[in-house]
Amino acid sequence: MVTAVDSVTTGPIEGSVKHYLEVDDLRVPVRRIPLSNGEHLDVYDTSGPYTDSAAAIDLAAGLPALRDTWERPAGDGPRTQLAWARAGFVTPEMRFVAAREGVEPELVRAEVAAGRAVIPANRNHPELEPTVIGKKFLVKINANIGNSAVSSSIAEEVEKMVWATRWGADTIMDLSTGRNIHETREWILRNSPVPVGTVPIYQALEQVNGDPTQLTWELYRDTVIEQAEQGVDYMTVHAGVLLRYIPLTAERVTGIVSRGGSIMAAWCLAHHRESFLYTHFEELCEILARYDVTFSLGDGLRPGSIADANDAAQFAELRTLGELTAIAKSHGVQVMIEGPGHVPMHKIVENVRLEEELCAEAPFYTLGPLATDIAPAYDHITSAIGAAMIAQAGTAMLCYVTPKEHLGLPNRDDVKVGVITYKIAAHSADLAKQHPHAQRRDDALSRARFEFRWRDQFALSLDPDTAREYHDETMPAEPAKTAHFCSMCGPKFCSMRISADVRAYAAKNDLTDVEAIEAGMVEKSAEFAGRGSQVYLPVVP
Amino acid sequence: MVTAVDSVTTGPIEGSVKHYLEVDDLRVPVRRIPLSNGEHLDVYDTSGPYTDSAAAIDLAAGLPALRDTWERPAGDGPRTQLAWARAGFVTPEMRFVAAREGVEPELVRAEVAAGRAVIPANRNHPELEPTVIGKKFLVKINANIGNSAVSSSIAEEVEKMVWATRWGADTIMDLSTGRNIHETREWILRNSPVPVGTVPIYQALEQVNGDPTQLTWELYRDTVIEQAEQGVDYMTVHAGVLLRYIPLTAERVTGIVSRGGSIMAAWCLAHHRESFLYTHFEELCEILARYDVTFSLGDGLRPGSIADANDAAQFAELRTLGELTAIAKSHGVQVMIEGPGHVPMHKIVENVRLEEELCAEAPFYTLGPLATDIAPAYDHITSAIGAAMIAQAGTAMLCYVTPKEHLGLPNRDDVKVGVITYKIAAHSADLAKQHPHAQRRDDALSRARFEFRWRDQFALSLDPDTAREYHDETMPAEPAKTAHFCSMCGPKFCSMRISADVRAYAAKNDLTDVEAIEAGMVEKSAEFAGRGSQVYLPVVP
Repeated sequence: MVTAVDSVTTGPIEGSVKHYLEVDDLRVPVRRIPLSNGEHLDVYDTSGPYTDSAAAIDLAAGLPALRDTWERPAGDGPRTQLAWARAGFVTPEMRFVAAREGVEPELVRAEVAAGRAVIPANRNHPELEPTVIGKKFLVKINANIGNSAVSSSIAEEVEKMVWATRWGADTIMDLSTGRNIHETREWILRNSPVPVGTVPIYQALEQVNGDPTQLTWELYRDTVIEQAEQGVDYMTVHAGVLLRYIPLTAERVTGIVSRGGSIMAAWCLAHHRESFLYTHFEELCEILARYDVTFSLGDGLRPGSIADANDAAQFAELRTLGELTAIAKSHGVQVMIEGPGHVPMHKIVENVRLEEELCAEAPFYTLGPLATDIAPAYDHITSAIGAAMIAQAGTAMLCYVTPKEHLGLPNRDDVKVGVITYKIAAHSADLAKQHPHAQRRDDALSRARFEFRWRDQFALSLDPDTAREYHDETMPAEPAKTAHFCSMCGPKFCSMRISADVRAYAAKNDLTDVEAIEAGMVEKSAEFAGRGSQVYLPVVP
Repeated sequence: MVTAVDSVTTGPIEGSVKHYLEVDDLRVPVRRIPLSNGEHLDVYDTSGPYTDSAAAIDLAAGLPALRDTWERPAGDGPRTQLAWARAGFVTPEMRFVAAREGVEPELVRAEVAAGRAVIPANRNHPELEPTVIGKKFLVKINANIGNSAVSSSIAEEVEKMVWATRWGADTIMDLSTGRNIHETREWILRNSPVPVGTVPIYQALEQVNGDPTQLTWELYRDTVIEQAEQGVDYMTVHAGVLLRYIPLTAERVTGIVSRGGSIMAAWCLAHHRESFLYTHFEELCEILARYDVTFSLGDGLRPGSIADANDAAQFAELRTLGELTAIAKSHGVQVMIEGPGHVPMHKIVENVRLEEELCAEAPFYTLGPLATDIAPAYDHITSAIGAAMIAQAGTAMLCYVTPKEHLGLPNRDDVKVGVITYKIAAHSADLAKQHPHAQRRDDALSRARFEFRWRDQFALSLDPDTAREYHDETMPAEPAKTAHFCSMCGPKFCSMRISADVRAYAAKNDLTDVEAIEAGMVEKSAEFAGRGSQVYLPVVP
C-alpha cells in the first residue's frame, strides 16, 4: 500500500548554498556560507539533497542510490566497515566521512578498525551520505522521530526527518510504536540522507499486541531481518538486561524508564530466565553482519532520575554490554554503547571512563544526560548541560531531547529547538576537545559581529531565521542590517565601536608592546590628545 | 515627578502558597508546594510579597521597610556586614539568609568574615529580603533589566523586576542608559525584595552626553553617592581597566565588549593616565562603606568571543582586581568579582581557580560564560552550559543571558526564559556541589513522575505553567492529569507502569538480594508464572 506523503521542506538555509567537494570519485556535500567580505565558510552538512536548489525531490522515487556505484573491497570474511578496516581497506564510506570531517582517510580506517568509531551504513540503504561516529571526530547528534499510538502520520514523520536533518541531525531514529511501522520506515529510509536507527523490539511488541511476555526469539529475529532488509543502519538492542539485575532497580526512585529495558525486564521475570536477546546474541550478530547493521547496545537500566544515577543496576548492565561488545566485534559487527539519561554533573565523567574501560572504547551514545529533574518543559536545556559535558569527556553521539520530554510528543518546532540545542552541545564539546576546524565558525561569526556585518552573523549562526527575527523585533528597518550599532546600547554608545577604534589606534601607534607603552606613557598621551578623542566616539546623528 | 506605574504581576505561582518560617524575631519567606500525597516541599523564594495572596501591593508606597526594625550590632568601625562578621557579630541579615539556606548562622558569619561570601544590603534599602552570595551557599542568579535609549518605560522595568524575581532571580541589576535613570531606579528599589545592582558609570555618562572623555572623578563620585543614598545594594566598578592593559586587546577578535570597560578604556587613552576609578579607589571604598554597598569589581576586559577567552588582557585585569579586593576589604567593604563572558568549556575551570587565587576567594559573579559563539537567539542555552560548569567549579552568582543576547532587548517572555534557564544552571551546580538540601526537589518531582501525580509534577517544576501547557497540547482532558500513562507511549505500554509492578513484585518476594535470586532462580520462576504475568501489564481498555 502506498500512502500519500505531502511535500517536505526544501531549499537552502538562509544565507547558504549547497556545494559539493569533489574528492576523487566522490561528491561530498557541504553547506557553503558566502560572506559579504568576499570570504566564505564551508560547514558540515547533514541535510542531503533537500537543501540543494538544483535537486529534484520525488519522495515516491526516493533519493538517488548514491552508494550503489561505490566499489566494495574484495576479501574474505564479513563485508562490514569494521572487517574491511581491520583488513586494511579504506572504503568509499571512509573516504567520504574523512572529507566531511577534514581528516585523513587513514585516521578513519584506524579508528573503525580499533572499534573506537563506527560508520553505520546498511548495504541496503544506498541513499545514505555516510557519517562517522567516534570520539576523535566531530560530535554527532541524533533526533528521534516516530509516530505513536496516540498521534501523528507517515507524512509528518517523513517531514520530521527532513526537518531534523535540515537543522543538523546526523542520524535519526524511527521509534514508531503504532500502526504502519513498516511503511513509515520504508518512506523514511528511501528518503533519508542520514543513518536511520530503530529499536526492533517495538515492532515485535506490536505483533504480540503489546504483551511482552509473548515475545519470542523467532518473532524478534524475523523483525530484525525485515528491518535489515529495508536498510536500517543501526539497531538498539537491550541485550544487557539480565534477570539478576532487575531487582537492583526495585529501590530506585524511578525504576526502569527505558521502554526496551522494561519490556525485557517483564519478559525475563515472567519466564524467569535470561532474555532471548542475550541467549541468542551470536545469531543476532550473524544477521547484523550480513547487512553491516551497527549495534547500538541499549542501556535498558539507565537512570531516570538524579537519585538513580550511576547505581548498581546501571553499571552492572554496562559491564554486560562490554562482554557483548567483544562478541559482536568478533563477528565483524560495529558497536555503539548507549548511555544515560539523568546524571548530576559531578557523576558524568565516571560514566564515560567506565564505558571506555568496560566496552573497549566503543563509541558512547548518550541520551542527554539531564543534569537535574526539576525543569520539565526545559529538558532540552537541562540535558544540553549534561550532553555538552559528557561529549567533552568523550561521548561520540548525543541523542537529542526536546522541550516536550516527559510531557508529550514533539511537534515541528520542538524538533527544531531540540536539534539546534544539541548542535550547541555538540559544537561546544568540539571546541573543548580542540577539534582542528571547530573554532573557524566561532571566529567567523565573532568577526562578523565585531564588524557589524549583521547578515553574515545571521548566516553563520545555527538558526539564521530566528537570529534575524529576534534582531528585527527591536530594529526592523533594513538599514539596521548595516548599522554600526544595535538596539542594546543605541547609536550613541557602543562598546564594539570603541573597541574597533582602540584597535585602529593601537595598530597605528604600535601599542602592542606593553613595556614600550608604559615607558612612553606621557608622549603617547600628548600625541593622543592631539588626535582628538572623537576617534573613540564618532557622533552618529 | 511621579510617573504612573501600571500594576504588576501578583498572586502565587500555580500549585504553591506563600509561607513564612518564624525564626526568632524574623519571618523568612518560603514557597510551599503542597503535594497530593499529603506531603509538602518548601523551596527558596525570591518573589517577595507579590506572590503572597494576603499582601496588599501598593507600588507608590513601596514594600514594607522590613529591615528598619532589625537591631544593628554596636561596635566601632565600619557598619557593614563584613565588619560585623569580622567582629564576631551575627546580624539579623545573617540569621535571615541562614534560615533561607537551611544552614547555621555561624557558617554565614564565618564565610562573610573570610570574604568568601557577601550579603549585599544597603542600609537605605530596608525593603530588602537579604540573600547571601558565596560558594558554600546555593548558587544565585542575577537578571539584568533597564531601559535603553531605544525602547521601554519605567512601568515595564518595574514589572520586569517583579516578573524576574517571581521566577527566581536572586538579584536584579538596573542597567538603564536612557532618560529617567534616577526615577526608574527609585521605583525599582522601593518595590524590590531582592538586592539591586547598578553600573554607576552609565548614569555618569548620560550626564556628559555620552562622551566618556568628559567624565571626571567628581561627577562619578556624586553619582555613586546619589545611588547609594537611594539604596543600591551593589555597584559594578570597572577599576581594573589599566592603561597598559588596553593594547593587549588590540589583537583580539572582538576587542573590548564590556560597556563599562570600553568607557574606561576610552577615558584612559584620551587622558593617557590611569582612570579615576583606580586612582580614587580608596575614596570610593569610604563612600561604599558608609552605606554597606557591595563592590562588584567589573571585568571590563572580559572576552567577547571564544577566540579571546583567558587571554593576557583578561587575566591582567583580574590580577588588578585582586589588589583592589584587598584594599576594599581593609575598608570593611564587601567585594564580589565579575567574570566572563565567552569561554570554551575546557578553559572554564581555570577562570575560577585564578579568581580564587588572585582575589582571596571573593565571590565570583560571571556572565554565562557562553560555551560557543555560533548560536545567537539561543545564547541563554550556550551560556547555561558554561554557567552550570563555572558554578560547579565555585562561582557564587550567575548573571543570566536571554535569547535576545547580541540581537535585541529582552521582552517579558525573554526575561522569564532567561531566569528559568539560569535556575536550571544554578540548581544543576547545587546538585553537583552536593548542597545538602538541593536534591530534595529533584527527588520529590521524580517520585511524582513515577507515581503519575501529574499536578504535583507541574507544581514542583521550575515553570508549572509551561509544563502543564505542554502536557495539555497532546492530552488536554482533565482525566489525563491522573491517568497512569502519558502521550509518549500511549495507554497500552508504559515503562513506568512496568517498573512499578517490578517494584511491587520485588518487595513481596524479597528480590533485593541478588545472590538469593540467582540461587533460587528456578523456584522463583515457577512462583512467578503461577501469579500470572498480568501483574506486569495490566490491560487498560
